[in-house]
Amino acid sequence: MKQSETGLKNHEVGVFALGGLGEVGKNMYCVEFQDELIVIDSGVLFPDDYLLGIDYVINDYTYLFENQDKIKALIITHGHEDHIGGITYLLRQVKIPKIYASGMAVGLIKNKLQKHRGFRSTLIEYQEHETIVFGKLSVSFYRTNHSIPDSFGVVVHTPQGSVVHSGDFKFDFTPTGPDANYQKMAELGKEGVLCLLSDSTNSEFPAFTKSETTVSENLKDIFTKIDGRVIIATFASNVHRVQQIIEASLATNRKIALYGRSMLRTVEVGKDMGYINAPQNMFVDSHRISKKDSRRLTIICTGSQGEPFAALSRIAAGTHRQIKIKEGDTVIFSSSAIPGNQISIYKTINQLFRRGSNVITNSPLTDTHASGHAGREEQKLLLKLLRPKYFMPIHGEYRMLKIHAQTALSTGVKKGNEFVLDNGQVLALTSNSARISGAVQADNIYIDGGGIGNIGNVVIRDRNMLSKDGLLSAIITINKDNNTLIGNPAIISRGFIYMRDNSDMTHEMSNLIKTEITKKLARTKELNVNVIKRHMSKVLNNYIHNKTERSPMVMPVVMLTN
Amino acid sequence: MKQSETGLKNHEVGVFALGGLGEVGKNMYCVEFQDELIVIDSGVLFPDDYLLGIDYVINDYTYLFENQDKIKALIITHGHEDHIGGITYLLRQVKIPKIYASGMAVGLIKNKLQKHRGFRSTLIEYQEHETIVFGKLSVSFYRTNHSIPDSFGVVVHTPQGSVVHSGDFKFDFTPTGPDANYQKMAELGKEGVLCLLSDSTNSEFPAFTKSETTVSENLKDIFTKIDGRVIIATFASNVHRVQQIIEASLATNRKIALYGRSMLRTVEVGKDMGYINAPQNMFVDSHRISKKDSRRLTIICTGSQGEPFAALSRIAAGTHRQIKIKEGDTVIFSSSAIPGNQISIYKTINQLFRRGSNVITNSPLTDTHASGHAGREEQKLLLKLLRPKYFMPIHGEYRMLKIHAQTALSTGVKKGNEFVLDNGQVLALTSNSARISGAVQADNIYIDGGGIGNIGNVVIRDRNMLSKDGLLSAIITINKDNNTLIGNPAIISRGFIYMRDNSDMTHEMSNLIKTEITKKLARTKELNVNVIKRHMSKVLNNYIHNKTERSPMVMPVVMLTN
Repeated sequence: MKQSETGLKNHEVGVFALGGLGEVGKNMYCVEFQDELIVIDSGVLFPDDYLLGIDYVINDYTYLFENQDKIKALIITHGHEDHIGGITYLLRQVKIPKIYASGMAVGLIKNKLQKHRGFRSTLIEYQEHETIVFGKLSVSFYRTNHSIPDSFGVVVHTPQGSVVHSGDFKFDFTPTGPDANYQKMAELGKEGVLCLLSDSTNSEFPAFTKSETTVSENLKDIFTKIDGRVIIATFASNVHRVQQIIEASLATNRKIALYGRSMLRTVEVGKDMGYINAPQNMFVDSHRISKKDSRRLTIICTGSQGEPFAALSRIAAGTHRQIKIKEGDTVIFSSSAIPGNQISIYKTINQLFRRGSNVITNSPLTDTHASGHAGREEQKLLLKLLRPKYFMPIHGEYRMLKIHAQTALSTGVKKGNEFVLDNGQVLALTSNSARISGAVQADNIYIDGGGIGNIGNVVIRDRNMLSKDGLLSAIITINKDNNTLIGNPAIISRGFIYMRDNSDMTHEMSNLIKTEITKKLARTKELNVNVIKRHMSKVLNNYIHNKTERSPMVMPVVMLTN
Repeated sequence: MKQSETGLKNHEVGVFALGGLGEVGKNMYCVEFQDELIVIDSGVLFPDDYLLGIDYVINDYTYLFENQDKIKALIITHGHEDHIGGITYLLRQVKIPKIYASGMAVGLIKNKLQKHRGFRSTLIEYQEHETIVFGKLSVSFYRTNHSIPDSFGVVVHTPQGSVVHSGDFKFDFTPTGPDANYQKMAELGKEGVLCLLSDSTNSEFPAFTKSETTVSENLKDIFTKIDGRVIIATFASNVHRVQQIIEASLATNRKIALYGRSMLRTVEVGKDMGYINAPQNMFVDSHRISKKDSRRLTIICTGSQGEPFAALSRIAAGTHRQIKIKEGDTVIFSSSAIPGNQISIYKTINQLFRRGSNVITNSPLTDTHASGHAGREEQKLLLKLLRPKYFMPIHGEYRMLKIHAQTALSTGVKKGNEFVLDNGQVLALTSNSARISGAVQADNIYIDGGGIGNIGNVVIRDRNMLSKDGLLSAIITINKDNNTLIGNPAIISRGFIYMRDNSDMTHEMSNLIKTEITKKLARTKELNVNVIKRHMSKVLNNYIHNKTERSPMVMPVVMLTN
């Protein structure tokens, strides 16, 4: 599926996504003008249950590889995995001279790069006030509110006008970190924005999202009412939230123990950067919590999405080494359920209740979590501040993009100036025109396990099929010298039916194959193994379908001897 | 796992579930006293994505089979599949003299029994005012509000007191059907209820659910604002909702076309029973809708849960024969998302938007759906009306049961008188005591496809494993006469890695097996195929783990010739 034509004319600015449209994850956007290419973000996508056994999905970097001489820089908006998780994969394939990132993201990217020496790319920290000038393109920044510190919107200044990428954002009028830069956004709007690419994650939520301060106050209230241990799960990257939990613990005279590798890493980076502040003796060695007074302990852990190997899931399953649930424990989910994770999360909650814990989840009654993404009214505010001529919703599934485009029209973007695109589709812009000019290659690349790297669509399709009805294999041995069957065909299967209870079927299939293939071989002059295999498949598929109405994967195997 | 002892003493009344505790589905509750056994409901459970390729799960009927002489009757509370879907499976295994059901449930059960002739069980229609006297046990009823007409609570009168089963219920003060029987519930409370078994589905929802009348009014409002076609998906069994959609269509001068087998069946039964009322010419032949004025058409269909083969999913995918989405269409989800179905539902919505339809889902802004199950405040009302001495939450996952028990305590049930049980656990009651006396067999039975019937846990486990990392099989041929390998081992795999890209690995594995098994055979005096297979597995597992960090299912095959 190779189609890598931007179709751009020499004076046009190209804007396109290699990931992030029609999905929440693997964000990667490009702004191209003549011989210059700016890449914004390089994320991964965490698959839902439909992608079987896959660890994550990354972008197809083919276009970047083929145009690497044009690439001036990779600009990082913020340090979430769906924006930085693909960087080491990208650098392995594509020469990127400079990576620009800021604050927290720098710390997290350094961490990744340390594990992969030998990359010849320079990591540069940008400041909000800077403008980075390349050739005809230059880049500037403005601060946003989001669920990780140091999140920025990115402005790519082009000869045709400014292309603004919103980053991940919300508007929090009482944030726990610094304010968003309202003034700079308004100024950009005054100067004129050619095209806005804006975060669509919460475009279905028809209001303003809650402030982090609300969550902070609620957590303090909840902590005060709890006598026993508090076990609280949240997204590891939400450093502000972790700091609030520390403050609620301080206020209720609790020590803190941390569990989960990503939680430990973020807190480490957060401390280094000054985002995590706590008295020296606040943290308890996670191996020694049994010696602490239960009422005076907060356990912060990963696993808010029911991830099977995360700390909370192991606590719930009773397999965590240090933490066993006891009467009086309260587990708080300071998180929301990402669609696709509900079943796993509910399983975890059921197990926690069964072990005797109380469980508090985020709800309109508890407000233990606030989203980091703008609701519809915040999306409108950004549109009003920036007043873009053209609008391209990004960072969302198709319905989110579509609804965001409707929102943009309602705030004054002209009908026809909104572009709901697919990954790869190129939007060609001039100061007074916009058109879809072409499409570049932007497939999904599946990553599974440490050793192998990417696996293809065929493997995914096979796993899907195997998961439904299992497989059945018939194995025959043919004497090459005289084209005759040796012995009886063997039938083996897994995940299809329980073979011990169905030995009749096994015998029937074996006999059927023997009869049919013997007939076939008698008519055969020159042995063609593929013809024999196809015939075995046909015979078995018919038999199985009539007998069971199921469709296991059928694998015929021919062994040759002489 | 056989453990079938109720542990009941002669004067104790036993109450237990064969399904419905720790799950939403396959409801089946039993009340036993001496030589009498009353069974309430016989449902199926529709699995979430974790049960691979399974159509549904039914109850383990072993206890009923072993005690069939005691069974006086099967009592049906209402006609939903999670309460009646298992009846034909039950009757195939267990002799049930009489089935009592009412109204809509009778129609739906008749439909099932017609397809399976030869059952010797009498289906009897009960009326709300009747009391059915068996020996020492008798049964009476009271009407509830629910999302299917003719839903009842069931009272089993025993020598120790009344055991009340709430059925599925809510309290709707402005229902579209008849009122719940508040007076009869209050009277039962006045006389004294020994134990209440009550629906826990919505015990996490901390309020009163909405009335069907609210939904009815909202649908009319929404229909009025839509110019093009209305395509509306709802649960087929919700006859009241279908009638409301008919009325909203009448009010906006629309004809109706119906799609989806279960929708057609329910409307048929609903018409027969007088629940569906519409002018003669209201319904349009579903094959002829292209000839109708689009603005004057409502399409009612199945598929609100994103079920792959349901009408709406096919419309969304563009594979429906009669219905193609066109500009101006509006799809309304008059339904909620059952956990586990979110991803499928979102996929459907994305596709609908992509085809140009507008989509309206249930939300606090639209209210296109009301639940049929009591929220926490309604659960409290039932507890206040019935005033049970003992309380056993039913019909829910563990956390729902647990929270429902807390709710019961808050309304006056004495601490220690609430019993959160597992399927099979027996609650032994007298007029002034309650204890868990034993447990009967209550496993899951998995049903897959038409031909085979139940499949075992082994098959499910294998499918789960196959779905993660696929499988790899090595096949060798051994000459029995001299214990030597013939030819080269064949390596085949599916869903593991893409073999064409990894031919090196295939050759290495083949050579490794050849070397190892040749060595092994040289030391072998008497050939033991299982020993050879185990050795092949060990060699392959080590190799694969070191090379890929994955764990495909490894299947060694040994062919013997001479």
